Amino acid sequence: MLIVRKVYLDHAATTPTHPKVVEAMLPYFTERFGNPSNLHDAGREAKNAVEEARAKTAALINAKPEDIYFTSSGTESNNFALKGIAQAYSQKGTHIIVSQIEHFSVLHTAKSLEKAGFTVTYVPTDPQGLVDPSDVAKAITKDTILVSIMHANNEIGTIEPIAEIAKITKNRGVLFHTDAVASTGWVPVDVNALGVDSLSLSGHQFYGPKGAAALYVRKGVRIRPQIEGGVQEDGRRGGTENVPAIVGLGVAAEIAAAELPRRMGHVAGLRDRLQKGLTERIEHMVVNGHPTLRLPHNLNVSMWYVEGESMLLFLNMDGVSVSSGSACTSRSLKSSHVLTCIGTDAAVANGTLLMTLGMGNTEGDIDFVLEKLPAIVQRLREMSPLYEDMVKKT
Amino acid sequence: MLIVRKVYLDHAATTPTHPKVVEAMLPYFTERFGNPSNLHDAGREAKNAVEEARAKTAALINAKPEDIYFTSSGTESNNFALKGIAQAYSQKGTHIIVSQIEHFSVLHTAKSLEKAGFTVTYVPTDPQGLVDPSDVAKAITKDTILVSIMHANNEIGTIEPIAEIAKITKNRGVLFHTDAVASTGWVPVDVNALGVDSLSLSGHQFYGPKGAAALYVRKGVRIRPQIEGGVQEDGRRGGTENVPAIVGLGVAAEIAAAELPRRMGHVAGLRDRLQKGLTERIEHMVVNGHPTLRLPHNLNVSMWYVEGESMLLFLNMDGVSVSSGSACTSRSLKSSHVLTCIGTDAAVANGTLLMTLGMGNTEGDIDFVLEKLPAIVQRLREMSPLYEDMVKKT
Repeated sequence: MLIVRKVYLDHAATTPTHPKVVEAMLPYFTERFGNPSNLHDAGREAKNAVEEARAKTAALINAKPEDIYFTSSGTESNNFALKGIAQAYSQKGTHIIVSQIEHFSVLHTAKSLEKAGFTVTYVPTDPQGLVDPSDVAKAITKDTILVSIMHANNEIGTIEPIAEIAKITKNRGVLFHTDAVASTGWVPVDVNALGVDSLSLSGHQFYGPKGAAALYVRKGVRIRPQIEGGVQEDGRRGGTENVPAIVGLGVAAEIAAAELPRRMGHVAGLRDRLQKGLTERIEHMVVNGHPTLRLPHNLNVSMWYVEGESMLLFLNMDGVSVSSGSACTSRSLKSSHVLTCIGTDAAVANGTLLMTLGMGNTEGDIDFVLEKLPAIVQRLREMSPLYEDMVKKT
Repeated sequence: MLIVRKVYLDHAATTPTHPKVVEAMLPYFTERFGNPSNLHDAGREAKNAVEEARAKTAALINAKPEDIYFTSSGTESNNFALKGIAQAYSQKGTHIIVSQIEHFSVLHTAKSLEKAGFTVTYVPTDPQGLVDPSDVAKAITKDTILVSIMHANNEIGTIEPIAEIAKITKNRGVLFHTDAVASTGWVPVDVNALGVDSLSLSGHQFYGPKGAAALYVRKGVRIRPQIEGGVQEDGRRGGTENVPAIVGLGVAAEIAAAELPRRMGHVAGLRDRLQKGLTERIEHMVVNGHPTLRLPHNLNVSMWYVEGESMLLFLNMDGVSVSSGSACTSRSLKSSHVLTCIGTDAAVANGTLLMTLGMGNTEGDIDFVLEKLPAIVQRLREMSPLYEDMVKKT
């Protein structure tokens, strides 16, 4: 089959690296390849590049450069935050609160901390994926040391009331981490406006390279290193800095800060066109997540009587890349814990498509999907005995 | 001052990325930017690239591809090995043995495990940096679960009797990890000939990119994930794979395997010329490490009556990059624990220079250093009151 158009609608899985980012990284592989720990010129040049990237990354989230710690992935940042803070404050208390719809880098780390003697409360959400701040307030005990609620959900795109929850945690003397991996670069993220004590972000989610991410840790918050070795990252994270990738993250942060309003407008416009078009063309389809408090590039839909993976594979044959859920779990072939949590019926959850827009997408891309997807759904449904029964009944 | 020549003699700190490595990485930032976890074409393309790199990395150390786990640094690999194995086998025993000259990513991790309830024996070395296998044998108790001895020391270059120690550990039913970060790509490394159960290596040490490293774990050895999240790396290490860097590591491994004998010959020849030249030109200088069981690109010398950092800075003004010790600790300004362990007098340890050769170095580079360094040493010594006293006495 001849593919005439390539449509990438999976920006929540990863984004292409911005050409300006690649250009900025290139010299740090070859002519400026030094190790930032070295005292000679080659080392100093690399050290300066890392510090410049730290300042740019900090600026994107209105943080101080000295509160930014570079890591290798959003997953590492979340592990670092939860384990590092829990271990540092275990003398004070051993209770932690997370939401049920967190990314697995938070949920699995929470499970791991439970095995290590901590107790964890998993707060639910409403059917649109919103955590109720009063549920967090009620869950806090005098033994609570840390709350971790994501800024925006990576599957359904719902943006949580972080600032409101932060008022509660501050008032109760509890630390508050937020996983902003899905949101940073797509909506404004301001650590002071949010009022959080730590925050994770990841470069490849917003046109930076894979392999560079960051954890913001507010000054004064104690955190135990998880990767121990040299004195890199102020002694909090050992290992030779991934200089080219860190430089790339800095440039991606700079680009995101500069074009954020335009970026949001572009992807929200396309997303709305896609949502409207699919709603008009496909029966028995529900849109998951919150109608307005959501990431501008996110569309998550579930369709009755059809399997998400089949749709994905047929779309792929037409040159369209989408996901049936989180990239991090797609190979595990389990249904989404997020959809289960918001109360989606298992039958319809199986028919889920996650489509996430980006700057490279055009109206032509959307119209192409609007032409292809309804036909794919119809063809697949015609093979489903359940659909046949339903059609007969109505 | 006009610098006429740039001489980089700090390949143990980091190497430039090989042009062929950069070339192989480039498409994975832009046109082939997919997330390996995705089931569509973009994801499959990335997944295939990661698996190809895994096979190449495995081939360099004569391992099976499925026993290779990608990480972000040698430091992360060592943390993963020690903590992951210790935690997995803590029901069996809680005693660990390491050498006193390990890299801090092993030593600090060992300290951390001590705080978590494990006990650690730190075996010494002889004055040339060699661990005595019988010291390891004597240290093993019925509670011992893991021995970690580095393949080659990153500062003094001494190559340890790993295969001999492995016979002991295997015989006693104890697991054996080796940190081969300093040696991989510079001497033959064969996990089967060495007989180890796990092994760390790092790409940027041998012309690969920063940000890509690996941990080999022999099939059947249990290890607890340290970075928890998605099901990447067979569920043992979460986080989106750093595809471009992993591809780069694979190509660097392929190049190393192909040119190893030539690489060893080139750097050993230059190193010998440098060692001979300095010995002839500088009085009161000692060569640290083992005379023959050493990395071919390593020269570590200590000079009386002069400070390593001053020599480093003067050489830097002449365009020559060297280290006064491990890059990972140079900013901590402490004297080398390795030199302390091998019994180097603190006064002479302060006058240490670590010079590590690479493929880009020429005889002209060496002759340039042989011209510059003795004069620098002489000038610095003339300013030292201790040296004056010594000259008067002799």
